[in-house]
Amino acid sequence: MLDQLVDPDLDRIFHALADPGRRLMVDRLSQGPASVTQLGQPLAMSLAAVLQHVQVLEACGLVRSQKIGRTRTCSINPVALRSAESWIAERRALWERRLDRLGGYLADAGSGMPPDAGADRGQSLNQPEG
Amino acid sequence: MLDQLVDPDLDRIFHALADPGRRLMVDRLSQGPASVTQLGQPLAMSLAAVLQHVQVLEACGLVRSQKIGRTRTCSINPVALRSAESWIAERRALWERRLDRLGGYLADAGSGMPPDAGADRGQSLNQPEG
Repeated sequence: MLDQLVDPDLDRIFHALADPGRRLMVDRLSQGPASVTQLGQPLAMSLAAVLQHVQVLEACGLVRSQKIGRTRTCSINPVALRSAESWIAERRALWERRLDRLGGYLADAGSGMPPDAGADRGQSLNQPEG
Repeated sequence: MLDQLVDPDLDRIFHALADPGRRLMVDRLSQGPASVTQLGQPLAMSLAAVLQHVQVLEACGLVRSQKIGRTRTCSINPVALRSAESWIAERRALWERRLDRLGGYLADAGSGMPPDAGADRGQSLNQPEG
């Protein structure tokens, strides 16, 4: 079962996003492509350190870069961003559906409705609207 | 600017999600509460190791636990899950809106429309519907 969830890309994407400097870079890139120098501007670190962060972002697929002349321009890869978002969203949705069902049961129990009443209510909800 | 994005909880939430074993635990908990023993069942590790992972998940707010008698029962905290999901979703949406605008410009340029034509089209879209 663990094998199903061992997605090395998700490991690396979430690891990349755990650093505030790298999140700042992703935030900047969500507004459009930027050079490595531009990405480093708000960060108090050397260009070498900025490059290392860019490499982490590239290795997990969050960022793509292209070197033209002496300038390396980075842009975001939405596929990687979406895969991390989907993983979280699916678990949250599962949990919320479970909670909704639980809420429904409790409401039925609280109103003292017999078990059949819930089914009746379901039927009436399925009737076409007048 | 970095201060804005330095959210220690996000650092810890993404760090917690970077581990496949912890993701498996979150996955299990999205289906309903579970004891620490149940969470450890699919993982080939000691109970002490499982407990350490649970502690990481609790420290970042992804999981809450309650000990009754000798059993510690864990459940998911959707607030933490939602904050990580929102962070990613907002950046992805920004990037996609930018891409949509770019697509619009390119389509206008491709159709040979004069720059005013776009403005006219915008106006007609703003007219009240008949």
